[in-house]
Amino acid sequence: MLSVEEARARILGAIGVVGVETVSVSGSWFRVLAAPVVARLTQPPTDVSAMDGFAVRAADAAEGARLRVVGAAPAGRPYDGMLKWGEAVRLFTGSVMPAGADTVVLQEDATVEAEIVVVNQAARQGQHVRRQGQDFAAGDTLLSPGRRLSARDVGLAAAANHPWLTVHRRPRVAILATGDEIHLPGDVLRPGGIVSSNTHVLASMVRAVGADPSVLPVAGDSVAAIRDAALSAAGADILVTTGGASVGAHDLVQAGLAERGFTLDFWKIAMRPGKPMIFGNLQGMPVLGLPGNPVSAFVCALIFLVPALRRLSGLTHVELETERAVLGADLRANDRRADFLRARLGRGPAGELLATPFERQDSALQTVLAEAGALIHRPPHAPALAAGASVPIIRLDGFDF
Amino acid sequence: MLSVEEARARILGAIGVVGVETVSVSGSWFRVLAAPVVARLTQPPTDVSAMDGFAVRAADAAEGARLRVVGAAPAGRPYDGMLKWGEAVRLFTGSVMPAGADTVVLQEDATVEAEIVVVNQAARQGQHVRRQGQDFAAGDTLLSPGRRLSARDVGLAAAANHPWLTVHRRPRVAILATGDEIHLPGDVLRPGGIVSSNTHVLASMVRAVGADPSVLPVAGDSVAAIRDAALSAAGADILVTTGGASVGAHDLVQAGLAERGFTLDFWKIAMRPGKPMIFGNLQGMPVLGLPGNPVSAFVCALIFLVPALRRLSGLTHVELETERAVLGADLRANDRRADFLRARLGRGPAGELLATPFERQDSALQTVLAEAGALIHRPPHAPALAAGASVPIIRLDGFDF
Repeated sequence: MLSVEEARARILGAIGVVGVETVSVSGSWFRVLAAPVVARLTQPPTDVSAMDGFAVRAADAAEGARLRVVGAAPAGRPYDGMLKWGEAVRLFTGSVMPAGADTVVLQEDATVEAEIVVVNQAARQGQHVRRQGQDFAAGDTLLSPGRRLSARDVGLAAAANHPWLTVHRRPRVAILATGDEIHLPGDVLRPGGIVSSNTHVLASMVRAVGADPSVLPVAGDSVAAIRDAALSAAGADILVTTGGASVGAHDLVQAGLAERGFTLDFWKIAMRPGKPMIFGNLQGMPVLGLPGNPVSAFVCALIFLVPALRRLSGLTHVELETERAVLGADLRANDRRADFLRARLGRGPAGELLATPFERQDSALQTVLAEAGALIHRPPHAPALAAGASVPIIRLDGFDF
Repeated sequence: MLSVEEARARILGAIGVVGVETVSVSGSWFRVLAAPVVARLTQPPTDVSAMDGFAVRAADAAEGARLRVVGAAPAGRPYDGMLKWGEAVRLFTGSVMPAGADTVVLQEDATVEAEIVVVNQAARQGQHVRRQGQDFAAGDTLLSPGRRLSARDVGLAAAANHPWLTVHRRPRVAILATGDEIHLPGDVLRPGGIVSSNTHVLASMVRAVGADPSVLPVAGDSVAAIRDAALSAAGADILVTTGGASVGAHDLVQAGLAERGFTLDFWKIAMRPGKPMIFGNLQGMPVLGLPGNPVSAFVCALIFLVPALRRLSGLTHVELETERAVLGADLRANDRRADFLRARLGRGPAGELLATPFERQDSALQTVLAEAGALIHRPPHAPALAAGASVPIIRLDGFDF
């Protein structure tokens, strides 16, 4: 059995990055940047006022000074004259500083009398002026490839005058559930039948990481059905199957895919839930064969599929974020398989993150899985721990998983 | 000036919840549930095997017992006979337990000799059997309204045999940038012109919380332009404006909207960045007028618009999540305005979350905003703090903002 880390490294080593496309900056949120965003302008483009007030020469702006208001410069309509000694120009936040002016007197620190402004508090030279280029200058690299664009990144690219951005296209993920017992929600169930939830969970996870799922029709338990389903996966960047990955006689995924040229890399991982997991290659397309058990399928998707999709997406950072939390209950020593315990998340008295494993860790419990706020990661042979110890966790809420 | 808390309470108090619609379970990820999900079946529907092995009667399964294999029950194809004394049925994970059987002998603990299975390890009664209804029973309420559906929730609803779910429709958010200086990305800029980034940031934030943005054409600095733009907002659940919210002579948003029947609730909040913010009502539609400054607009949107959109969406939990972090640099005492400092997030030596405020807190710096991992929340009159103190933060990464 492979360790979780080795399995993940082998998967990531076998996965490339999808191609690129041009999208409008207005549609670029959550996309992965594929080319640097270089400023097309300087921001601010000139010195501008940081406040509402009056542009003055600092040398004029002693306490009690009376300056002649020679004009106004609303944002977007600069004063085009030259400010002379003894003059002031009415300004607003963002107004271009007139030539000759170097300082802004706040309106709260001034009194206006007809065309005269009286300075009530001496000004410090340069005060309340935003300097040309203090945010960025034309030619500056503002955002680097491999980054998922946040709302703020989108704003920065727009402010730098980019209507279009080059991003990676969304990875296409084909999802195939296998098994004679599998029905779709709303079907009339045959005896022994169960409703497929894995495809819906996986499709949601795929969307949550910014990729496009394509759910294939369920394939029954025959080599021919799986062989034929593989055709529908053509053009996908990765094929994810669920079910049929264990050692039973009805484990036909490998056999069915083999008829289309599938080559196996590995199929067994030292983890719980989720030991039987297939990874291989179908004529250039990576194939991840998840267990049929819903909790196992979810955990394996989190640990292996999510980093794989991040790599495909072009993200620089592909590893799962782990945090540490305070353990809310005692844990027994672990055996040789890495364990991912479903846990409630809460806050302790000092605001510390508290992770309490559920009593019922049976991997068939979807109700427990849906309630879980985190998985506690127990490495192989981890020693027994008492409540209060610090443990590594993977938070589930941050992913919208 | 209102406190942040009072302003937020007044906004939330003035906002209702949008209506509901029916969506396919496959399209329900990230939607807000509007009706309980009640199990339409029992899971497991009958006792099933948790492993690959043999269904037996526990009383038969002493070490060394030889049992006759009378059939096989692959998942989805139950054995329809009654298991008699001395018999076994081949099973796989998820197989229905045959009538008469109460226990599963693991295949690893058995040896098969033609039609006989030899039990190598005595079985405990009931072992490796998943009991009918151990996950949920028909009629159980599995998910309650007001919850944003995670991938796991979608799976649970599917497993409970729901093809359709009742969710709140996505709130519609009209976004209006105002100001003669505002251009769209790619425009040739006039002198003093700046490129609108606020609308793109806001539209991205609106998407990130599961609502639908509609960006209206920029309105120039005239009462008529703003009055006319208001018409395009008809049918939105909330109108968000940016710019024109300060005390300058060019603050026309209130005047323009007043011509359509706008009534003001408040317009000044004791916070930094972002003091001037309008909230009011335009013939039944809430209006949030954000500052034009990009950092102020972002922070105000985070603090006020996000909870408002969550309330509109039908979520039960609308407050922003705050966490605590260790301060990475000294902070001066705060004045009477709440402060939201842009900060880098990192990890300290013991894995603790470390928030280090940027040196440059000028609210015009979009580069600094894009780099920030969190905002440090400084309440009014917060005392000076030394590096190492614990501070409340709002993480920005978790929102994809």
